[in-house]
This record gives sequence, C-alpha cells and structure tokens, in this order.
Amino acid sequence: MASPFFSANPSSAADGREPLLEQYRQVRRQSETICQPLATEDYCIQTMPDVSPPKWHIAHVSWFFETFLLLPFDSDYRLFHPRFDHLFNSYYVTHGQPFPRPQRGLLSRPTVAEIYRYRAYVDEAMTALLATLPEARWNDIRPRLLLGLHHEQQYQELLYTDIKHILALNPLRPVYQTAASSLQPARATALEWREFVGGIKTIGHESAAFCFDNETPRHRVYLNDYALGSRLVTNGEYLEFIEAGGYERPEFWLADGWNTVRQQGWQAPLYWEQQAGRWWSMTLAGMRPVAEQEPVCHVSCYEADAYARWAGKRLPTEAEWECAAASQPVGGNLRDADYRHPVPATGNGGLQQLYGDVWEWTQSPYAPYPGFRPLAGTLGEYNGKFMCSQMVLRGGSCVTPTDHIRSSYRNFFYNLMCNFS
Amino acid sequence: MASPFFSANPSSAADGREPLLEQYRQVRRQSETICQPLATEDYCIQTMPDVSPPKWHIAHVSWFFETFLLLPFDSDYRLFHPRFDHLFNSYYVTHGQPFPRPQRGLLSRPTVAEIYRYRAYVDEAMTALLATLPEARWNDIRPRLLLGLHHEQQYQELLYTDIKHILALNPLRPVYQTAASSLQPARATALEWREFVGGIKTIGHESAAFCFDNETPRHRVYLNDYALGSRLVTNGEYLEFIEAGGYERPEFWLADGWNTVRQQGWQAPLYWEQQAGRWWSMTLAGMRPVAEQEPVCHVSCYEADAYARWAGKRLPTEAEWECAAASQPVGGNLRDADYRHPVPATGNGGLQQLYGDVWEWTQSPYAPYPGFRPLAGTLGEYNGKFMCSQMVLRGGSCVTPTDHIRSSYRNFFYNLMCNFS
Amino acid sequence: MASPFFSANPSSAADGREPLLEQYRQVRRQSETICQPLATEDYCIQTMPDVSPPKWHIAHVSWFFETFLLLPFDSDYRLFHPRFDHLFNSYYVTHGQPFPRPQRGLLSRPTVAEIYRYRAYVDEAMTALLATLPEARWNDIRPRLLLGLHHEQQYQELLYTDIKHILALNPLRPVYQTAASSLQPARATALEWREFVGGIKTIGHESAAFCFDNETPRHRVYLNDYALGSRLVTNGEYLEFIEAGGYERPEFWLADGWNTVRQQGWQAPLYWEQQAGRWWSMTLAGMRPVAEQEPVCHVSCYEADAYARWAGKRLPTEAEWECAAASQPVGGNLRDADYRHPVPATGNGGLQQLYGDVWEWTQSPYAPYPGFRPLAGTLGEYNGKFMCSQMVLRGGSCVTPTDHIRSSYRNFFYNLMCNFS
Amino acid sequence: MASPFFSANPSSAADGREPLLEQYRQVRRQSETICQPLATEDYCIQTMPDVSPPKWHIAHVSWFFETFLLLPFDSDYRLFHPRFDHLFNSYYVTHGQPFPRPQRGLLSRPTVAEIYRYRAYVDEAMTALLATLPEARWNDIRPRLLLGLHHEQQYQELLYTDIKHILALNPLRPVYQTAASSLQPARATALEWREFVGGIKTIGHESAAFCFDNETPRHRVYLNDYALGSRLVTNGEYLEFIEAGGYERPEFWLADGWNTVRQQGWQAPLYWEQQAGRWWSMTLAGMRPVAEQEPVCHVSCYEADAYARWAGKRLPTEAEWECAAASQPVGGNLRDADYRHPVPATGNGGLQQLYGDVWEWTQSPYAPYPGFRPLAGTLGEYNGKFMCSQMVLRGGSCVTPTDHIRSSYRNFFYNLMCNFS
Repeated sequence: MASPFFSANPSSAADGREPLLEQYRQVRRQSETICQPLATEDYCIQTMPDVSPPKWHIAHVSWFFETFLLLPFDSDYRLFHPRFDHLFNSYYVTHGQPFPRPQRGLLSRPTVAEIYRYRAYVDEAMTALLATLPEARWNDIRPRLLLGLHHEQQYQELLYTDIKHILALNPLRPVYQTAASSLQPARATALEWREFVGGIKTIGHESAAFCFDNETPRHRVYLNDYALGSRLVTNGEYLEFIEAGGYERPEFWLADGWNTVRQQGWQAPLYWEQQAGRWWSMTLAGMRPVAEQEPVCHVSCYEADAYARWAGKRLPTEAEWECAAASQPVGGNLRDADYRHPVPATGNGGLQQLYGDVWEWTQSPYAPYPGFRPLAGTLGEYNGKFMCSQMVLRGGSCVTPTDHIRSSYRNFFYNLMCNFS
Repeated sequence: MASPFFSANPSSAADGREPLLEQYRQVRRQSETICQPLATEDYCIQTMPDVSPPKWHIAHVSWFFETFLLLPFDSDYRLFHPRFDHLFNSYYVTHGQPFPRPQRGLLSRPTVAEIYRYRAYVDEAMTALLATLPEARWNDIRPRLLLGLHHEQQYQELLYTDIKHILALNPLRPVYQTAASSLQPARATALEWREFVGGIKTIGHESAAFCFDNETPRHRVYLNDYALGSRLVTNGEYLEFIEAGGYERPEFWLADGWNTVRQQGWQAPLYWEQQAGRWWSMTLAGMRPVAEQEPVCHVSCYEADAYARWAGKRLPTEAEWECAAASQPVGGNLRDADYRHPVPATGNGGLQQLYGDVWEWTQSPYAPYPGFRPLAGTLGEYNGKFMCSQMVLRGGSCVTPTDHIRSSYRNFFYNLMCNFS
Repeated sequence: MASPFFSANPSSAADGREPLLEQYRQVRRQSETICQPLATEDYCIQTMPDVSPPKWHIAHVSWFFETFLLLPFDSDYRLFHPRFDHLFNSYYVTHGQPFPRPQRGLLSRPTVAEIYRYRAYVDEAMTALLATLPEARWNDIRPRLLLGLHHEQQYQELLYTDIKHILALNPLRPVYQTAASSLQPARATALEWREFVGGIKTIGHESAAFCFDNETPRHRVYLNDYALGSRLVTNGEYLEFIEAGGYERPEFWLADGWNTVRQQGWQAPLYWEQQAGRWWSMTLAGMRPVAEQEPVCHVSCYEADAYARWAGKRLPTEAEWECAAASQPVGGNLRDADYRHPVPATGNGGLQQLYGDVWEWTQSPYAPYPGFRPLAGTLGEYNGKFMCSQMVLRGGSCVTPTDHIRSSYRNFFYNLMCNFS
Repeated sequence: MASPFFSANPSSAADGREPLLEQYRQVRRQSETICQPLATEDYCIQTMPDVSPPKWHIAHVSWFFETFLLLPFDSDYRLFHPRFDHLFNSYYVTHGQPFPRPQRGLLSRPTVAEIYRYRAYVDEAMTALLATLPEARWNDIRPRLLLGLHHEQQYQELLYTDIKHILALNPLRPVYQTAASSLQPARATALEWREFVGGIKTIGHESAAFCFDNETPRHRVYLNDYALGSRLVTNGEYLEFIEAGGYERPEFWLADGWNTVRQQGWQAPLYWEQQAGRWWSMTLAGMRPVAEQEPVCHVSCYEADAYARWAGKRLPTEAEWECAAASQPVGGNLRDADYRHPVPATGNGGLQQLYGDVWEWTQSPYAPYPGFRPLAGTLGEYNGKFMCSQMVLRGGSCVTPTDHIRSSYRNFFYNLMCNFS
C-alpha cells in the first residue's frame, strides 16, 4: 500500500464530483460482489497471521473512509460504534492502538450483518458529504477520496488472495466460483528475449492522474543494457526446475531462501500437491491439474530468484521493468478479464503478460526514491514505514482491477510471501 | 471424559427402549438449546488450542453416534459425508487420523447449517435404529447409547465453557444470555469445618446405574481423620489472598505454578479485570462487578493450592471428598437451576455447595484405581490414556446437567486450566 | 531433592563431630574425584535447560554450605564473592533472585579454577566452624550439615548424568572413563514374579537416621495383593517391544506420551542409535553395542509405562515398591561397585536389582504424604514445591552413592526425563 | 564476507612469496594475540545463535586454509582430524553438511589446546606448501591465499565483537583488557555538512589490489546532489533522541523496527544500562559511564534510521558514501590505533571518522552490483548468497585491521544486528 502524492495531482474534469461519486459507488459495490459467493463462516477465518478474515477487510475499508474523510470533513458525523476504531484500525499507530493483527480471527462479533450495516451507514454519510461539501473544501477532500478508493481496490486483491488461502487450507477444498468457460488450455508462445539499451533513464510517476507517494519523485537512474523475456515463466518450465532437483540443490538459493526451504519442507509452489504422481493445484475454482502452459503462480521471491539462477538468468530490477513497460499500454489478464487465474501467453511480439496474470518479482529491495518524503500526519504511515526488508513487484495480477495498475506502480511483499506472484 | 464400565450395568426397566429414546431426544435437544443464542459467527471461533468452535462440538457429538453406534449396528447406514470422519474425530488415534485440534478454528466449511443437517441426519438414523434393532442386540447397544448421551452432556458443559471464552476475549464483551433475575446478591453463610473420621473406606462406583470406567473398580483406601470446609471459598475471601500479595509471594506456590504466574503475568483469576480500582469479571451475562459473596470461579489448580497454603489449609484428596459426599443427595446450583453462574451459599448445616456452582480441585493426581482396566478397542481411549499429569476435580458446576453428576464422578484437567472450577 | 525432617533425628555417637567432619571431607573429595577426568571445557557446557555445567554444580554445592551453614552459624564469615549468591542459588526464590537456569551455560566466569578456590575457601571455613562451634549449637547445625552432605551426594549423581549428556551430544563422542574390566557380558537370570499380600501397610521413614522430609510422616496405606518382577527389564526384552512396533502404535501410550513420541520423533531410548542395522548406545566409556542382557536404561516414564502396557503388566506404585523393599538390605550395582553402567542380573531368588543399576519408575505421582509439612523458611523450598506433575522413582542407580539410598527414598522426575532410569 | 574477484588481480612484486608468507605469519599471529587475554572458559561460550565461541572461530579460519588451499594444492596433505570438516565448516553447503550453527556452544571438545594444535599443524603445512609449490602453480594459489588472509581478518573483528558479547552478558562484567591511557575524554568538533555534486559517478573496486567479489564490477550510478555530516553522531546527540522519547514514538521508526522496539523492550543502544539515573555502557575495558563526546556505537540499522528521521535527515546510500570517500586516504581509529573503542572526533575540515570508530549504516540494501557474477564452485557461497534482507555498512571500525579496509569495501548485517556500528 502507499500514500498519495497529494500536491502533484491538480483537479481535472474527470475528477469532478459526479464522476467521483459514481466511482465511489462502483468500487464499493465491487467489494461486495467479490464477497457474494462467501458463506457467513468464510468471512470469519484467519488462517495465518498475514491473512485477515474477509469481514475484517470489509470493515477496515469502511473505517478508512470514516476516519480519514468523514471525521475530518463532516463535523456532524457520529461514529457508528465507539470500539470500531480500535478493532478496524490496521496499522496506524500514530492514530491509536490497533487490535492485534494475529487475533483478528478471534472476533466473532461484530457479525457479518453488523459489518454490512456499518458499511451502509458509512456509504450513506459519504454520499451526503460528497453531495453537500462546500466547493471551497473540494480540493482538500478529493485526494483523500481517491486514496480511499485505491485503498479499497488494494483490499479487493487481498480479498481474493485471502479467500483462496482460507478455502485451500480446508480439507474439503471448497469452490469459490466455477471457472469461466474460456479458461481452456492453450499453447503458450515461445520465449524470446527483448533487448533494451541502457543510459540515463527517468522513472517514477509523472502524469496528473492519481498515484501513491512511493512512486515519486520522478528521478534519474543509470541503466546498463539489458534484456527481458517476452512472456512469463510457465508451469511447465518451472516443473523442469523441480525435476532438476531445484528444491534440493542449495547452489541456486539465497541463504535465507535455502533455510526456508529446509525448515518448511518446500517442494513446489504454494497450493501445489502431488496426487498419484501428478501435480494438482488449488484455484478459486477448486482443485485442478497443474496446466503446463499457464504462468507459474504463488512463488516466493526466493523461488523466483532460485529459478532464475538455475536458468542462468536473473530477476530484473524495478527500473529495468518500468523503462520497458513505460511505452506499453496497460492491458491483459487483469480482473476485468474475469479469469481470476493466470492464462497462457498467446500473443506475438513485444512483451506479453507485462500486466496482469501474476505480479512479477524484481530484484529490487523496496526503498525510498531519492528525495522521497512521506506525508505529514497519520497517512504518512501508509507507505514509508514499510521501506525495508521487502522486495518490489510490478505489473498487477489476474485479480488486480484494470484501472488500478500503471507502469510506475510499486507493490511490495516480504521475500517469502506467495500471493498471486 | 471417561469410558463406561459396560459389564457392571445390567438392564433395568428405566433403561427400556422408549425411555432411552426419549432421553436421547432430550439430550440432543438440550445441546441445540444451549447454542440457540449464538450468532453463526460465534460457532466458528477457536480462541486457543484447548477451546474448540461450538460448531465443531455440535458435529463431534453426532460423529460419536455415527461412528460407535450407527456404523457397527446398522449395516445399511451410509455416511453423511466421507471426510467428516477425519474432521470430527477428536482424539481416537486407533480409529483414524484426527484433524489437528489447534486448527479446528480454521475450517469455515462445513457451515453451521450443514452441520445441523448432519445432526438431523444422524438423529433420524438413530431413531430408526433404536426403534428397529432386534431385541437380541439391545443389550449390546444400550451401554454405548448411554455412553453417547453422557458424552454429549460432557460436551454441553464444554459448550458453555468455550462460549464464555469466545465472548470474553472479544473487546465488545458480548452477552450470551441475560442473567436470571434471582442472581441477586445474598449473604454467604459463615465458613465452618466439618470433621470426618478416618479408617479403611471404600470408594468408586457401586450402583447399577451408568458410570464411566475411571470410577471403577470400587476399592478400599485408608484415610486419616480429616475436615472439610462447610462451603466454597468466596470471592471476598480470595480477594484477601490477592490483597495479601498472594500473586507476588512465591512461598505459597508450587514451583510450576510460580513459573506460570511469572511467565503469564497472572494477577487474579481468569476473566477478572480491574477498572477504576474495582474488580470486574466476565460472565455469560456480560461484565459484572465481582460479587464478594459468590464462590470464586475460574481458578487453576495452582491458584487453588496457593490459596489453601496461604490460608494454612490444604486441598482435599478425592477419596476424602467422595467419602464425605457419598451420603449426601445430589443437588444445588447445577444447570437445571438455570443460573449459569455460581451463587452464594445460603443454607445451614452439612456441606453446602458440594455439588454444582464450581468443580472442586482436589490434591489427587488423576490416576487409575487399583485394578482399573481400560475397555478393549477404540473406546478404551476415552479415558485411560489421560491418566497422567492431570488433577481430579469433583462435584460438577453450575453448567453441569443434574442427571450427569454423582459422588464417584471424576473430572480431570491440567493444572493450569481454569474452567468453571 | 528433599528437605530433612529435622526433629526426628536425635543425635547419636555416629553423628559426633569427628565422624561427621570426616564424612564431610569424604563427600567433598568424592565430587572432585568425579570431575577429575574432565577437561576445563567440559565444565562449561549446558546442553539443554535441564542440564547444568559441571562447574555450576561444583559451585552450587559450596554455595549451599555457605548460605545455610556458614552465614547463619559463623558471624565472622565473609563471603568469598558478593555476586556468587546470585549466580549459584539454584531455585530458592524466597532467599533471593537466582540467575536464570537456562543461561547457566553462558557464564564463562568465574573460571573453573576460581570455583575450586571458592570451594577450598568454603571447606576451610567449614572445617574451622565444625571444630570450634560451641557444644550448645551443635544440635542446631548437625541436621543442616547432614542435609548439605546428602544434597551434595544428589549433585554427584547429577554430575554423572549431565557429563554423560554433554559428551553424548558431541559428534566426537568423547570417553569419560574407560569401562571397568568386569563390565563383561553375562547372562541375565530368567524373569519370575514375586507375590506380596495386601492389607493395611505402613510406609515412610522410621529410623533415627537421616532422611529427607518428603519421606515423612510414616503413615498407613491400604494395598491389594500384588506381584513384582524378580529383576529389571533387559535391553533384549525392550528390543522386542521396539520390534513389535512399540513406538508406532498409539494404543500402548498415554496421550501425553504419544504426543511426545510424535513431536520428538522417538524411536528408541535416549542415547540409542542405529549403525548398519545394529543398535549402539552412548555410555560413560564411549559408544558400545547395546548389550541385550543389561537392564534397559534412559527411558522416560512414558516409555516405561508403554512397555508395561505392551507386556500386559503395569508399573508398581511407590507403596508397593517400598513394602517389598523394606525387608531387603541395601546393595547391588550402586556407585561403589564402580561400573557406572547397569549390569545384568545374575543372582537367584528374591528381588534382584531392587537397588542400583537404574532408578525404577513407579506409577505414583509425586505427592505429599498425609500430614506432610514443609520446613519453615527457605529450606522449605527444597522439596515441597515440586510436589506436582512429576512421578516417583525408587531404588537408586549405578551412580548413586551406596550410603545415600534407602527403602523410603523418593526420587522424582518429570515424565519425559530420561536420567539413569 | 565476500569472495575475491580472482581474475582482476595480476601478480605484483608485493605479492611475491616471501612477503606473502610473512603476511600469513602476521595475520595468524594477530588472531592469537587477540585471544591472549581469554581464559579457556571464555573460548567455549555461545551467547546467542549469531555469536560463535572464540575457539570455533580459531578453528574455522584454520579449516579454511586446510579446505581451500592445503587439500587442493598439496596432494600429500593428511587431515588433522576426520570430523573437523563437519565441525568447522561454517556455511558452505555445497561442500558438506555444516554442524548446526546455534549448537556450536555445545561442543566442549575439541579442547582449546587441541584447536591450537590443529592451528599449528595447518601453519606448518601451509609454510611448507608456500615454500615448495612449483612456480607454475603460484598464480593459482595466490588469490586463494589472499582470500584466506582477508577471511581471517574478518574473523578477527568477529572475535572482538563476540568476546565483548560474551563478557557483557556475564553479571560479573569481566574486563577483556584495560583501556589505553589515551582513551581520555576530549571535546568532539562541531558537526558541519559537506556538500557533494551529483551526476553520473562510478563506484566499485578498481585497483589491482585485493578485493572481495561483491565490490565488483565497477559500474556507473546516477547521484543527485547530497551532503554528509562532517563526523559521526555522538552519544550526547543520541541521548537527546532518547530524551525526546525516541524509543516511545512510532513516527520515527520503520514498521519492522518499531515491532522490534516493542517486542524486545529496547530503550537505548545495546550494552547501555541505567544506574542511579546515569547511563553506563559495557566496553572491552569493562563498565564505563557513557561518554557524551564519543560516537554512538552498537546501534542497529533501525535505530540509526530512526535517529536520522528524528533529526530531519536520512542515512546516506552506499554510492554516496563511496564517492565521498574515494578521494580520502584510509586512516583513523582503526585497530592499529589500539583503542578498541570509538573516540571523539577532534580534527577539523573534511570528513572526520569516515574510516574506523564504528561501521556506518547506509540506507542501501545489500544487493549485487550490475553484472555481478559469483565465483564458480564452493567459494561462490562466500558472498553472493547473502545478497538479500541485509543492509550495507561502510568504513570499518575501531577493531578493523587498517590494511583490511578501503573505500569500496561492503560490509553487511541484518537490520537488527548491533555490532560495532
């Protein structure tokens, strides 16, 4: 997550009240659509400290609007419940004492129905606020509104990720939604290498549209010449790594990665399991045989790095990725494609699958850009305080909203996290 | 829990089919009544490894009838679901591989509704089985039926205990059920000492009625003269111990107890908390000020032992307790009194509160009686394998069914467990 | 360990000053003899929290004389070092704050040489004190002197136990001392069963000689008829249990024991390891093939109990053991035999190996005898506070001093400890 | 640690046999000099998993010469002991299975004397090898010899660091060596800011002298203008941060840092403790009051970063540091100055304390330089596999050998390590 670079985004027509209110309605509705297939029980489970119960996500994104928009901008606003600020604050320690994250799954109350009432209460207040706020304050609230919407879109991706973990861990292996009919096997195009010329380059966000503050300031970097693969690594290619003893041979692994492989007994990507000599994998549509032509998914940074080393390659830096992506339009297997699963690369030429399918690990540690300044106040915690010990990922996944991703977008996970990546 | 001493219980009129079928219906209905105030979300939570989600309890007691009665006695019986045997086996490792206990709270599926369907399915099959079983097999099934009913009654007490833990841990402190109006303050009668003469005594179950196997065989013990308090220790008396620095003075504590006090920062019984200089405590009716006249509740064996040492006394042995209780009829603040909370002792003479209110810690480690023999087969695991490192408790509590307790009944917990005790 | 029942031991000629001073010298010398084969480095290692570095043991037993005899009885005594009271207090929390036990192995200082200087300093002061104390105070100090000597003898057994662990864990498998030549294979006599008649019996210490307070008061118990095996279980017999799948079959194990077997991957007794299809075991004389005729050693209470259950037997109670042992003179493979390892039973008739070889697990939890009263003051911690969650062992081992063991002696370990037992 | 970029270092006169043999003798002697004040017991202690017993260090550096020089280059060489390869391999998993690092402190054998015999044995063989190796093989062995020497110098710094931890943790707070007389209080010069102009710069090792492979290849980077402080932050300045509530205010900390502060209860740098309202700190010369004019030492990266944020500054990148340092000669309070403790900055002009005193945290994650290639074979593990989740430090400390440090030298620790930094 990241905080918005407020001052860099002058108002434009597309940011008018009515379009933004409509966008608010759409984004909020989309979160509910994602949860529609869930049973009440699915909303309550926390399968590991890094996973939160879906009902918590649904409440937290409402808390965000309540805390950072309704309270500061609506002097008549009355809290829905006095304890929700404690329960649904995620990590803003300068704002208050958040309820401990690893214990979110221990809260049976508020119930799912109460949380949806909370959500409706916030929506009603937000709608009224956006309709009645004096014009003089519009420029103050607009950046926060955009931030709140992009924040909720980040949680939509988290919802897919956490729902998958919750269902995958259950021996009954429940289905979230059956697959789109178009999710049929196809043949991935051959891997080629696209070459790029180095020199002084400029990266970071530059347009007037919304961005998070970690994408700024735009700045110069020096790159050597480099090449990128024309598409993502497939399951079939990754299987060759497994069959070559990839998970038994320390020479391909970072030291911390090798320790993890040993201690956790890793043998394959997350969600893979062998049944009668064949690899299967859990998907949002239930258990399926691993499809060799699809991009490999749910690998940690350690696995991505070890695969690259085995293949005699390396991961790209985030600057290399961004320079290559800057001239290419956003598109591909993002959430709007409605696959909710990576699909084979079938196009020709250029860089396939740059956006969508899976987040792409880079070799760049997540660090501040030169001259980066976190925002003043509590929203400064959104992003800057996580700039250590994590790695940058780029490009979005099959569950990222299409209007949420861009070439300068910096996602970040710890090395061993295995989200849609 | 404990397994039934099958051979000792010849059939009697009261054990006829119709009365037993009616008893089956009552016991099963009672479990559902207990869960009636729960929200779906309350059914799913596991607040610590020793607590199970209520929906798991509800499923497990049905699994018990399915596994130990329907499958062996009804050759046409078809399993409700092939994976439920894995999910709802508690600890019978000679029967199969139970799903890991600490992960019961990670299962969103089966849903609560599915579990109630499972329950209805088992009830229907049980009703048919009990109605149609040939007379020749009745004597085989009757002891198992009784065992299944007493087993479910044990889980009813667990349901109260775990529901309390689930609600108490929630910062919203939800109410399970409002208190009975009669739960008003009363003045506890003065503590007196009742003396008993020692010698060779006989303990263990002796009547033809149902008992668990750990209550047998009836056998001789030698007792010195002893005395028992005429009622339970009150909160007011326990507060004196706290105020005398009981939780800061190692001289009153067993070594393992003192380590626990230090490591876990104990300052008072479970569920007590100080607000503005006054002690409050969580009850099934929500937060209430600690009532000085009520018996102290939710203390571990370490705390009971330390209190006794501070008071210059000791805990009774289970033989002392049983000999004193043998001549006294079962009665008191058990579940049928419907308080679901300990109440002050108001009677005169004899031993007050011997039954009900809270389970009474003894100083007796839970060990086999001389000549004890566990049952053959999987049901032998019910009881015998727990005969180490636990302490015996006696007398039942305010959430124990009245027809479930007797003078020879042996309950057992680990030292640091703080159930209704 | 246990505290002395002071009042029960009137002075006798054998307890005169000169004999006791000579006994003091012998016991103290014996501790140093045990350590004589150690390298300085061996003195410093703590292989697990329950093991202490030998140099710590050597210092602690001196601290005991300093703290409980020199300081109270010699008003001119000056401490050797002001911080040693903190470092070498074991667990007397009413006396002061002991240095954390699991960190004893982190102390490189004081050096071994300094600790021997401390030891000599205490010896000199003790010798002077015993020579010069006014007759009027002799009866006050004598019980504490006896306690200090028996305390040091307990630590001598601990020294052997911990030295063995320290050397066994080292891949170089160093030899402590080569075996006595007489430690040659012999044929164990056949196992027979000796029968004993039950009834009211009396157990507990009764003579005027020294005992620990946990052996008192002498009191009546009721026993059923019982039988004891004529000798200890051999390695060969235990191997049959292993080969019958003993460590894979839960039906023989207590629940806590089975969890331990699974979690720790137990396959055989401590120190056993398989090499080329044959079992070897670490001894104080280095690695040796497991000798089938020797008693099995280093089994936990869980393993002893599981073996007995597999064999269709049970462990004895401590009362059964004591009544059987009361009429038999102390003798056997105790430390004075100088084997430092269990040897096969070669005698005929009666109960072989009742004393010595290995401590014998009973099925009795370690609990206070009826009427037990811990001593007033800090020495009351010696024993009483450990009376929970441990099991009683009887009879001493091949490293127990001969003049330290008796029929009423109660040793106690946690279930999963695998000392010479 | 890091591996040498072999091919870049053509032989020169100074690298002739005789000078290198003399350098070998000096470096080896220096390790022994460092250990000279140790008691045998000090050699054996492992105070935490990241600390190794000094005797292990002394053995490991000998193992390095045995494994990577004697075995490959001397066909007649016979191992000193067949198990030492297992015991003293640090982390070269492609070479063999190293003894587990956290258990190094559990090995009482080999004794210190045996390890010094091992050391002498290796020295004798090395001396013979270097004297007799055919000229044709000299260019093969020379880079490995240099690597072995620089490797041992790295362990010399580790020895100081670990010895300090071992002594500091002991309540007796033993003195390693009394302080040099010149370690007297002085007044630190005022902090000024030195400005540097950005643009395309080149960093990485360039001369023919030895370097580790992580310093290569030399490559271009783009820098903005920047400024560096003229000297290190002092204890006095850091105390202002503490007194301003630095350890209680989350807004200054990275999220992972703040979690560490809370979980570990940090209140001040490692080794600081408050006595009677005044801060003291452990040094190699024992406990001393914190000297306000000295550079702050033993702070983690989290603390350095939080201090900078509080002061309105930031840590430098490693490229900024190197460009500023490139033109300045190596010098300052390095080990040859013999203080073994940071001293106040007393000079004027330029950048004080760039080298020596304490390692300087940068904001640069430790990552490969563009085009970096690890060596083939086991020595490729020296460095490359640690390039994740650590931060780069620069400039050496008061215990770094003067001939070991240079402007391109990259040291690296995990964020929360508190070595001389």
